[in-house]
Amino acid sequence: MKQLNRQQIISIVSQLDLISPIENGFIQYSRGQVVIPPVGELLLDKGEVHIKYGYVKADDYYVIKIASGFYKNPEIGLSSSNGLMLLFNQQTGELVCNLMDEGYLTDIRTAIAGAICAKYLAPKKITAIGIIGTGIQARLQAIYLKTVTRCRHIVVWGRNKVKLDEYQCYMQEQGFSVMISNSIEELAQHANLIISTTPATSPILKAEYLKPGTHITAVGSDTAEKQELAVDILAMADLVVADSFHQCQQRGEIFHALTNNKISKGDITELGNIIAKGQGRMDDNQVTIADLTGLAIQDIKIAEAVYFSSNEKDE
Amino acid sequence: MKQLNRQQIISIVSQLDLISPIENGFIQYSRGQVVIPPVGELLLDKGEVHIKYGYVKADDYYVIKIASGFYKNPEIGLSSSNGLMLLFNQQTGELVCNLMDEGYLTDIRTAIAGAICAKYLAPKKITAIGIIGTGIQARLQAIYLKTVTRCRHIVVWGRNKVKLDEYQCYMQEQGFSVMISNSIEELAQHANLIISTTPATSPILKAEYLKPGTHITAVGSDTAEKQELAVDILAMADLVVADSFHQCQQRGEIFHALTNNKISKGDITELGNIIAKGQGRMDDNQVTIADLTGLAIQDIKIAEAVYFSSNEKDE
Repeated sequence: MKQLNRQQIISIVSQLDLISPIENGFIQYSRGQVVIPPVGELLLDKGEVHIKYGYVKADDYYVIKIASGFYKNPEIGLSSSNGLMLLFNQQTGELVCNLMDEGYLTDIRTAIAGAICAKYLAPKKITAIGIIGTGIQARLQAIYLKTVTRCRHIVVWGRNKVKLDEYQCYMQEQGFSVMISNSIEELAQHANLIISTTPATSPILKAEYLKPGTHITAVGSDTAEKQELAVDILAMADLVVADSFHQCQQRGEIFHALTNNKISKGDITELGNIIAKGQGRMDDNQVTIADLTGLAIQDIKIAEAVYFSSNEKDE
Repeated sequence: MKQLNRQQIISIVSQLDLISPIENGFIQYSRGQVVIPPVGELLLDKGEVHIKYGYVKADDYYVIKIASGFYKNPEIGLSSSNGLMLLFNQQTGELVCNLMDEGYLTDIRTAIAGAICAKYLAPKKITAIGIIGTGIQARLQAIYLKTVTRCRHIVVWGRNKVKLDEYQCYMQEQGFSVMISNSIEELAQHANLIISTTPATSPILKAEYLKPGTHITAVGSDTAEKQELAVDILAMADLVVADSFHQCQQRGEIFHALTNNKISKGDITELGNIIAKGQGRMDDNQVTIADLTGLAIQDIKIAEAVYFSSNEKDE
């Protein structure tokens, strides 16, 4: 059994193309080649734990991910996110690799999914990347967009002035120019690729803010309670993409738009099908939406990719 | 993070009183002091994986157990059982201990539950221990009964002559005299403490075989398909005990007796309540049944006990 700690995993990930394996995972998912049981959930006084697991039938492994969020941890100097991924042999059940990533790979695979959405759905010419929020996904989403766009201009909006300044400083070090906007409306006037990364529980991005040709990737909402986009945005969109048709009927932005009869199930396209076709956006005036709720297939693919790469290093 | 391998765990377990913590766990379970979500299940071509998890509200940890059964493993020299238990901090979500037991602790906690049942339900004078089956539980159940009875006489029944001989040999080395019986009927004539440990899917122990004063612990049936006891046994029993009132309505011997209207829910007593009262059997002529389907609370308690003991050793 191999064991990789967070530092080793960070080092491996920095040298890895993760877009290809995760794209492949989304395709396999949409083709029904993946087994993913319902997510396990454990609720505690100070946090919550999710267990996501499954396997690609044609692969050699199954993966069980344990990811936790303990929201008071930062008060005592700990990260709120934690967890690990376990890779087992599909033929024997033997534990092959313990990836003690402490939540790192979940952050990365989420950012990779955002980059994949932008690859197929963002307009050809990106005027600015609009980032709503200042947390870890606000950073990683922009950093991984580097692999799919040359645009290095960010317009950011957040509620907290100190965090905005920190964000600006950090992202400038990453090679971006960063403009802090006074409102989400202003952000949407500058940016035609918008990534929303907040845990908002009522819509903060309105339909009337948007310019034609904008693509929005909604990353923040992964439960039935959370919502960042006004349902009118999904109603007006030319293309509404779900990471999982099944999961997006139960949580996230699409769930709200369906519940409010703003869109119908027939309006939804699954990300894996967009990737398989190699084309999402049809012209520069379309408004497109991608709703990412987070799938175990992303965990499976990133765990396998890191494990394979660690073996190559050993050789 | 501490890591314990199978050999270290075996060494710790050999020196540990596990009856007390697991008894305490059953009491806490029956008092509603435990959070246990539904079991996660992953089905593969050659095996199945179960994820059992939860925590005692008053304890410091939560435990996630991954246990697998890959039934063709013995053909390639591997154990069919495998898995690990992970102990996390309830306050922060940090991984505290990785118990890489490869399924060992599941076997042990199952045997301990059997010993606890015998402690409260077996007749005062045990004429012989009847063991149905020759597998790992057929061995461990008898070995752990040593802690609650002085009887060292086993009557065993199994389908396979070679395995019966191996069983006899192995258990003689463990300090038992072992008689191989020709039928389950013959076994039931000698033994008044019977442990059934097979994966039978239709009843093999019949009501007419039983002597007054017999206690039966049914260990084998942990799904809705499996069944070792004729439902008439539960109908005639003076006391029917379930490890979990909830779980036994969905699987195991009690499930079959309920489904066939041989007993009603009011006839069932939960093991934790028997332990809390300190008394099960009322006289030497009662027929008593304990149906063990296996609970996450047993995993939680054994993982905690092993972890605590490993810390004492470190000091």
